[in-house]
Amino acid sequence: MNHSEYLGYMAGIITTLSLLPQALKILSTRHTRDISLIWAIAMNIGVILWLLYGLARQDPPMIAANAFSLILLMTILLLKLRYG
Amino acid sequence: MNHSEYLGYMAGIITTLSLLPQALKILSTRHTRDISLIWAIAMNIGVILWLLYGLARQDPPMIAANAFSLILLMTILLLKLRYG
Repeated sequence: MNHSEYLGYMAGIITTLSLLPQALKILSTRHTRDISLIWAIAMNIGVILWLLYGLARQDPPMIAANAFSLILLMTILLLKLRYG
Repeated sequence: MNHSEYLGYMAGIITTLSLLPQALKILSTRHTRDISLIWAIAMNIGVILWLLYGLARQDPPMIAANAFSLILLMTILLLKLRYG
């Protein structure tokens, strides 16, 4: 693994894991009022496109980060739709 | 511009612009209680790393998207710190 790939994995781990405390916060409070629905929808669409871009560029850090982020973003979107 | 670069710009525009309604929502309600502080901090750090990765890979869509996202994420973080 070269230096830039290491940087990409670090970036991917941090931005992906950042979604975990957000999802856990919602699960604990059951409040999503301050979270923008447009943000949640657009992030899901955008991350699907980043994933396709990562696949097109054959970029392992981008593929891994966006695949895991998508799972967490779908969870957050479903929670937002549920709790409003 | 080739097909994958077009995909990257689309992804970047959507994920970057997704932060705008979130920032505007906070500015309008002055409420950030449901937004995770850890998410806001980690996203700022992670997007700085994605920006450096984009520069290392000389990837124009990644550089542009992460530079603009960082401005909006810094705004959201400052608002979160202000409104709690």
